[in-house]
Amino acid sequence: MVKYDFETLRNRYSSFLSRRDAAKQLVKFWDNPPGPGVIELAGGMPNSGFFPVDTIDLHVVSQPFEERHSQNGLKVHMDKNEPKEMPLSMSLQYTNTEGMEPLLSFARKMVECINQPAYEGWDVCMTSGSSDAMYKIFEVLCDEDSTVMMEEFTFSPVISNVKLQGANVIPVKMQLSANPEEQGIDIDRLADLLDNWSVGPYKHLNKPKALYTVSTGQNPTGMTLSLAKRNRIYEIAQKHDFIIVEDDPYGYLFFPPYDTKEPMKNAYWDDKSLTVQKYVDEYLVKSFLTIDTDARVIRLETFSKLYAPGLRLSFVVANKFLTERIFNMSEVTTRAPSGVSQALVYSVIKEMGKRHSSEPEPSVESMVTGWLEWLMKVAGHYAHRRNIAFKALYETEGYKEGLFQVMEPSAGMFIDLKPCWPQGELSRSDHYDLITEKMDQLNQSLLKSGVQVVLGYRMAVDVKASKDTCDFVRITIAYANDDAQIIEACHRIGKGFQVFFSRM
Amino acid sequence: MVKYDFETLRNRYSSFLSRRDAAKQLVKFWDNPPGPGVIELAGGMPNSGFFPVDTIDLHVVSQPFEERHSQNGLKVHMDKNEPKEMPLSMSLQYTNTEGMEPLLSFARKMVECINQPAYEGWDVCMTSGSSDAMYKIFEVLCDEDSTVMMEEFTFSPVISNVKLQGANVIPVKMQLSANPEEQGIDIDRLADLLDNWSVGPYKHLNKPKALYTVSTGQNPTGMTLSLAKRNRIYEIAQKHDFIIVEDDPYGYLFFPPYDTKEPMKNAYWDDKSLTVQKYVDEYLVKSFLTIDTDARVIRLETFSKLYAPGLRLSFVVANKFLTERIFNMSEVTTRAPSGVSQALVYSVIKEMGKRHSSEPEPSVESMVTGWLEWLMKVAGHYAHRRNIAFKALYETEGYKEGLFQVMEPSAGMFIDLKPCWPQGELSRSDHYDLITEKMDQLNQSLLKSGVQVVLGYRMAVDVKASKDTCDFVRITIAYANDDAQIIEACHRIGKGFQVFFSRM
Repeated sequence: MVKYDFETLRNRYSSFLSRRDAAKQLVKFWDNPPGPGVIELAGGMPNSGFFPVDTIDLHVVSQPFEERHSQNGLKVHMDKNEPKEMPLSMSLQYTNTEGMEPLLSFARKMVECINQPAYEGWDVCMTSGSSDAMYKIFEVLCDEDSTVMMEEFTFSPVISNVKLQGANVIPVKMQLSANPEEQGIDIDRLADLLDNWSVGPYKHLNKPKALYTVSTGQNPTGMTLSLAKRNRIYEIAQKHDFIIVEDDPYGYLFFPPYDTKEPMKNAYWDDKSLTVQKYVDEYLVKSFLTIDTDARVIRLETFSKLYAPGLRLSFVVANKFLTERIFNMSEVTTRAPSGVSQALVYSVIKEMGKRHSSEPEPSVESMVTGWLEWLMKVAGHYAHRRNIAFKALYETEGYKEGLFQVMEPSAGMFIDLKPCWPQGELSRSDHYDLITEKMDQLNQSLLKSGVQVVLGYRMAVDVKASKDTCDFVRITIAYANDDAQIIEACHRIGKGFQVFFSRM
Repeated sequence: MVKYDFETLRNRYSSFLSRRDAAKQLVKFWDNPPGPGVIELAGGMPNSGFFPVDTIDLHVVSQPFEERHSQNGLKVHMDKNEPKEMPLSMSLQYTNTEGMEPLLSFARKMVECINQPAYEGWDVCMTSGSSDAMYKIFEVLCDEDSTVMMEEFTFSPVISNVKLQGANVIPVKMQLSANPEEQGIDIDRLADLLDNWSVGPYKHLNKPKALYTVSTGQNPTGMTLSLAKRNRIYEIAQKHDFIIVEDDPYGYLFFPPYDTKEPMKNAYWDDKSLTVQKYVDEYLVKSFLTIDTDARVIRLETFSKLYAPGLRLSFVVANKFLTERIFNMSEVTTRAPSGVSQALVYSVIKEMGKRHSSEPEPSVESMVTGWLEWLMKVAGHYAHRRNIAFKALYETEGYKEGLFQVMEPSAGMFIDLKPCWPQGELSRSDHYDLITEKMDQLNQSLLKSGVQVVLGYRMAVDVKASKDTCDFVRITIAYANDDAQIIEACHRIGKGFQVFFSRM
């Protein structure tokens, strides 16, 4: 395996840094802690005796949606001494900007066990949510004359993170398909865009510095890039020398294939042979990190969808030169993520790890296994919701009348629905307003029928460039309280399409 | 009282915004939540049933440094329904970027009760620690050609927040004095600097946009600006039209005067008439907000020193136009502060408020009273530590031999000590290296004697401009475990000064 030291990475990747990055220098007035026996009177840190809270006790459910007051579950206790390696006297104190070491160790082990990078010389840095990570990444990389490529439909707030720098965002065409080999970024068009940049539609811009991709269970399309496509994208990245920013909030929520004959079939709940190892080896799609021989991939993971959004806790994986730049950005802005959030995550994961350890202090590997067990439980519930939703959608009159298609996602929290236009309804005109108008009308019909969805065109990087593909709506299966609410919502969707088409 | 609407504030303060501020626009793909009866399938928010933690229980001490397992204290319980207005199903979810409303209401009431601004049209915005608040404020205000004034000694990491924008930081001379009327920014020199800008040492820079001041218990000098000085600074701010950024992490830690005849006297512990109201009216120094008829003051408060640094939670008070810009900055970067941290603060303060309320649901005023009671307990411990430290310092041989002075602070966590140079030891030369060299030697002597302190010159905005004032060291009384450690540290300090001067 190729090994990169810091100097090599610096030489290789300095040219990617924004000009503003050079201005980021924390003015430090303190020195490292003194040796033993020296009384510390330097840091303006209040002794933990001043903290009003001296114990925190958590109850952890054994399953998502578990009944209150169930006798199951775990109890987690934290005080000034527990957990030993991250007691409250530490997590409630000023802590390292990059995150507390036990949590970093856990994150590194996650990466090693699941997405072992193809090089040595990588590291992780905790951040305060993926939005925080994203804007820091683009602060490090972008100036006003930088260009960033994004999938033509994307989590559009990320566009703001790039535009904050004054930089340009350009869309990359996708294939919206049920075929796993075809899903996601259109490789030929990506290659063509870059090979012929100087005569293409963006020739007035600098060639792209980075590609931002939500590669698994893409938001909003639900598409997942196959390994073959990932390899081709990587080759293109090498040829044109850009950085791949891989955002993966949903990858762990991977769906077994839907079976129309047995709609409620759920391997997470039915398949006794589905161990953690099988989940990792056969379900989870390998990150770009696993083919990253150049150290050009930045991967984002977050605890928002897998634990709770209110934590505002996430981490970035990249080569050590780039993680150091991201860390440096945090040093002069947010400093450390919430210590309370880090403690809640670490202590719970540690408790989950105890079940896989004969030792009182579980190894980091045990903690990864324990956490993956939890993730499989969450994924099992999302797979169930996917089943409920598909069954309900396919049973609607609207579907049976052929009014809409379901673009089956392979992972995540979103399902996209595409209206089936009567022949010639949308001619391939240069006037994109027609499609957005029609989609607005569909939205109104759906709202009137009692469901709120997201319009795909609202998540386009450039609606004009996506007029041929933006005719879909995105629904989420994450927020509903129960199966009944999902079923009712799907009935209303079917109705909404009927209402919409009856007006056309 | 003057009342400013948003348009007036926008017209008045748009000119203060950085050019980059215009690039800050969150790309939103979602609409407001639908009306009742419409099923929400839009937001990618996981149902709270997916959260692994369903209850959090806290133990709150009744006093700082309370014995473990004391029967005193408060128990705080949080679950999916409690506290009613901020249950875990809310605080662990995606929440408003500006902070959750109950906490914002509390912060507003704090400001109203303690530092009622001199105008209507202000608001608060939660932020993720003061460093986070600071960099956002300077992102909103500064470009590369902006100038910011700071007290000549300051919390130097803030310099990084300004330099991140490429902007310039210039020092404002201070008076380092025991006299409360003289402490802090030298008004005459500030007026002279600005009145004669175009012929002064910074004439090549734009006139300052803002003054950053830690006005009470200044870090590192411990100085507090008198009300008279605050009024004069405000007049100068009006004359030269700059914004005042008032950072107040320590103001609540206000010290009753030290009594050499009764060194252990502590009004927080001894004075039965010291009510919350008396503390607010007679101890706390009024913020610049209370004289801010123009709406030109931005005030920062933080929970770091008063609750715990690991929360990463703070808030900003300013006119609505400026809080909206700071909010907007958060929308495209960090988004909301940690919901867990907000829940820990709110639920504890609410519980403290119950003691001042006959209702089961305490009013916001009761919560402010409860919180202020806690702050007085914290301040009482800092006052005690100040007493212990002063007594110990004054009893050292080094002090009795006249080797150093103690610059008595009026609030906060820091005490500064100044070596008493033999006659002519430091001539007023242009070579500032002499003073920094001597201070480095003092530092070595102190380290050898077993204490680590902070050198004042390391916290100078511009050491060259502060060579006449930078000969002090800063010690903190915050971090030590107990009185004995403080006493031992002070003995070592006395020794350190003896060692230093014996070598000269």
